Amino acid sequence: MFISFDGIDGSGKSTQLRLFSDWLKATGKTPLLCRDPGSTPLGEKIRHLLLDTNEASIGRRAEMFLYMAARAQMVHEIIRPALEAGKIVVVDRFLLANIAYQGYGGYLDVKKLWDIGRFATESTSPELTFVFDLSPEVAAERISRPKDRMEQQGLSFFQRVSEGYRIEAKKHPGKFFLIQADRPEEAIAAEIRELYQEKEKSMVPK
Amino acid sequence: MFISFDGIDGSGKSTQLRLFSDWLKATGKTPLLCRDPGSTPLGEKIRHLLLDTNEASIGRRAEMFLYMAARAQMVHEIIRPALEAGKIVVVDRFLLANIAYQGYGGYLDVKKLWDIGRFATESTSPELTFVFDLSPEVAAERISRPKDRMEQQGLSFFQRVSEGYRIEAKKHPGKFFLIQADRPEEAIAAEIRELYQEKEKSMVPK
Repeated sequence: MFISFDGIDGSGKSTQLRLFSDWLKATGKTPLLCRDPGSTPLGEKIRHLLLDTNEASIGRRAEMFLYMAARAQMVHEIIRPALEAGKIVVVDRFLLANIAYQGYGGYLDVKKLWDIGRFATESTSPELTFVFDLSPEVAAERISRPKDRMEQQGLSFFQRVSEGYRIEAKKHPGKFFLIQADRPEEAIAAEIRELYQEKEKSMVPK
Repeated sequence: MFISFDGIDGSGKSTQLRLFSDWLKATGKTPLLCRDPGSTPLGEKIRHLLLDTNEASIGRRAEMFLYMAARAQMVHEIIRPALEAGKIVVVDRFLLANIAYQGYGGYLDVKKLWDIGRFATESTSPELTFVFDLSPEVAAERISRPKDRMEQQGLSFFQRVSEGYRIEAKKHPGKFFLIQADRPEEAIAAEIRELYQEKEKSMVPK
């Protein structure tokens, strides 16, 4: 099974990804963890280009294509081989993040981005996506480290991104699940485990 | 006017681009010269990732998206502002190179690449493209420096690329011009100047 955790920075998705994968391991499974952009040698170089505030100026389209390049490499080099070997793959962000950030946030054509993304990933997409929903004001306050290039964009940008995540979650019920992220860690972790188990049950051949 | 020089390495396109721009300057014009990938700080970093043989492993799709990212930045940062200011822009390679190399050479869907390329360039495309045609065997012999990552691919790859350039040139008459590159330098330079002058004449408002 292929599972992604998505949402704006500060929404708690990475913490919950760790809790979820620890729980999977405790049940005897060996999930493969990735982060997008990243996880391959090429992807980590692209991640550095994209997020380091001292790097070159990057327009919205170039930014989107760099994310697509990193993702194409990760799918080709890591995710498809792992899924074909029957592994559970858990990824921190995926194509939906491009839709929300460069599409809704950056005003690029959302339909076009889905289309380009399908080509980049050879139509490999998560069966289950947890979309962490939290007000951008609260999320920004939670980030204590220095903000990266993407995080330095203004509040109105993150409001469009959040709204984009919500719109897309509504469009894909049963696949994208909106997680209310302003609740205690353990309540969220329990909901995620439950949604995973339901999906697992539905996917087992009868 | 926007003009591109394209074709496989060793076909003489860069030499002819220099001769052509020297001639333009001698006629009092100030052409802006670019190379794709490259010319912007981001583009040059991407060029290094793509061509250095010691860099990370790159799959065909990731490769294509990296070229698109570099091109999107170059169009946004350099080419569109220059064209809007009425300048002549002359570029060493452009979108057609992705079509020939990653499409015909690398078996990615050609129609899809044109589509993605139009999005990357905001439909900015050269009015005039010189496509240098030379047998891959002869072209490879002409390259005396160490070959870069793209140039290290096998002869059958370059045969598909060359054939791709010819197919596309035939599809876009009046815009893409196939230049027989196995002729004396000055004969080729004269043909290019002539084709440019015809195009220039056809574009002047009556």
